[in-house]
Amino acid sequence: MRRLRTAVLLLLCIIGSTVHAADDSLPSWNDGPAKTAILQFVQATTDRSNPKFVPPEERIATFDQDGTLWVEHPIYTQVVYCLERVPALVAQKPELKNVEPFKTVLSGNRDAIAKLTLRDLEKILAATVAGMTVEQFQAEAKRWLAAARDPRWHRPYTELVYQPMVEVLNLFRGNGYKTYIVTGGGQDFVRVYSEQVYGIPPEQVVGTAGGTKFGFDKEGRPELTKEPKLLLNDNFAGKPEGIHLVIGRRPHAAFGNSTGDQQMLEYATVGNSAELGMLVLHDDAAREYAYGPAQGLPDTRVGTFTQALNDEAKKRGWFVISMKNDWKQLFPFDKQLRDH
Amino acid sequence: MRRLRTAVLLLLCIIGSTVHAADDSLPSWNDGPAKTAILQFVQATTDRSNPKFVPPEERIATFDQDGTLWVEHPIYTQVVYCLERVPALVAQKPELKNVEPFKTVLSGNRDAIAKLTLRDLEKILAATVAGMTVEQFQAEAKRWLAAARDPRWHRPYTELVYQPMVEVLNLFRGNGYKTYIVTGGGQDFVRVYSEQVYGIPPEQVVGTAGGTKFGFDKEGRPELTKEPKLLLNDNFAGKPEGIHLVIGRRPHAAFGNSTGDQQMLEYATVGNSAELGMLVLHDDAAREYAYGPAQGLPDTRVGTFTQALNDEAKKRGWFVISMKNDWKQLFPFDKQLRDH
Repeated sequence: MRRLRTAVLLLLCIIGSTVHAADDSLPSWNDGPAKTAILQFVQATTDRSNPKFVPPEERIATFDQDGTLWVEHPIYTQVVYCLERVPALVAQKPELKNVEPFKTVLSGNRDAIAKLTLRDLEKILAATVAGMTVEQFQAEAKRWLAAARDPRWHRPYTELVYQPMVEVLNLFRGNGYKTYIVTGGGQDFVRVYSEQVYGIPPEQVVGTAGGTKFGFDKEGRPELTKEPKLLLNDNFAGKPEGIHLVIGRRPHAAFGNSTGDQQMLEYATVGNSAELGMLVLHDDAAREYAYGPAQGLPDTRVGTFTQALNDEAKKRGWFVISMKNDWKQLFPFDKQLRDH
Repeated sequence: MRRLRTAVLLLLCIIGSTVHAADDSLPSWNDGPAKTAILQFVQATTDRSNPKFVPPEERIATFDQDGTLWVEHPIYTQVVYCLERVPALVAQKPELKNVEPFKTVLSGNRDAIAKLTLRDLEKILAATVAGMTVEQFQAEAKRWLAAARDPRWHRPYTELVYQPMVEVLNLFRGNGYKTYIVTGGGQDFVRVYSEQVYGIPPEQVVGTAGGTKFGFDKEGRPELTKEPKLLLNDNFAGKPEGIHLVIGRRPHAAFGNSTGDQQMLEYATVGNSAELGMLVLHDDAAREYAYGPAQGLPDTRVGTFTQALNDEAKKRGWFVISMKNDWKQLFPFDKQLRDH
């Protein structure tokens, strides 16, 4: 019996090593250095006999969201949400009607809206959520997400996730990793759908977070109300700082796509052997968008893959994922592309 | 075969319901309303046919630490740690020698030290940790915890945990609950030992947290340095606010022992049926300490079980755990008390 089992195991090993590439857990990835790096990292860090072995409790992997797990171009989904909430806000507070940046948003002038600064958007965000209870915000965001459609694909935004990255999340979790979203976007916004869309529970979402205030409603029931006060700006250096605040461990793998993720990747790849840094490069104008150094965008633009980021990736040994070359299938609904 | 299985199951059910009290998961608890409430809560919320059923992903239970999971009297362990770090700090920064509150600490005058205000202690805490990297702080706190001994029991502070509460943590986790520490103490300090002592990983510790600053050391390696800036004051209303920031879900069960826990318990017990609020009352001067309303301490003292808290417990249906009556065995090392 024992000899039979040994023989079967041996056979499985031999078959396993040859069919690996065909029958792997990343079917939407084309073979290449990025796919190999991911598979090798997971294999090495979960193999007790490997010097890169990582104990289960230390298996933390962090993922940026916008542009890494789902589409961010041409405008962040949460910004769309905020802008679309402005009319309801002004209906409640008519005094904002002639005040900037609300006036510009109400004008419907797309060019002017596109020119709103980050500070303007923060102002709008703070105004649209302040005074709502945490539950009201969740219900409101959920309603909006169910109804809203992306103008290019005519689908809910929550369907515009990258199938290859969903596979990476599953692969990591299947190997004992806790997967975290670490987003410059709003923590409470992403929490509304992270479990359903990515299998990531709210407590594993680190994001830009405003304060809340504990109190009681008219019936004396305890509640938390959202405050227009920034607690954590989870972008750039704020990402490792947010990771420490919420997780308290250094991740062994980090995935991002823009300058806002650089510090998170630096923090995850300090020079130990068990570490992986990866950047998604949007170079696929046909299936999604192409933006970044190859497209000659200015390096100063926030949230892009700059030449400086590319240099840092080379210096630190991060892998660049080419959307065009590394991803066989882009979206879960792209059935027709599966065998291309 | 099927009939046999049914019969065995039936038999197990009958036996189960009668042996429950004798062969339970809370052996250090005396039978009584507190023990029954815990067992019934866990049973009800994990039984799909019960209206109080809580889906696994929503099973969150939060526990205060000082005075709820381990001894807090007569002085918080972390305060001892801070005070004992002062000489090393002054050696590095001699200019602090004649500055309050450092001068008082160095004087060794116990009465004067006991009179230091919370603000003094915060000043000391900030000064003793500022400028350390996160890893340096962890190593330093670990070293201190290994060497320090409690003056009454002559044991490491990490052994002064309440065995009945360790059993509660295990019972909750065994039933799919994520157990969180939500402490007014320092998040990074508690994280150093929470996994080893309570089986609670660093990412499930919510505590008073200072800021960190991302940067690079002289060799260009990324690091996080502790800053003397308060990010989250995780006490009183700060507890539910901290729970929302880090967890993002309302707990179904919350355990505390003092006024600093009141808002956390209120937040956990909003009037739904699947909720449990419990307060540990320190009424056991022989085995531990007695302090609280029964001892006539003034209601204004921070961190105690006041009369007002007792009233709130009655109003909201929280259970009060009497250390003297509900706990058969106090500490894990109290073998001799196991059968008393």
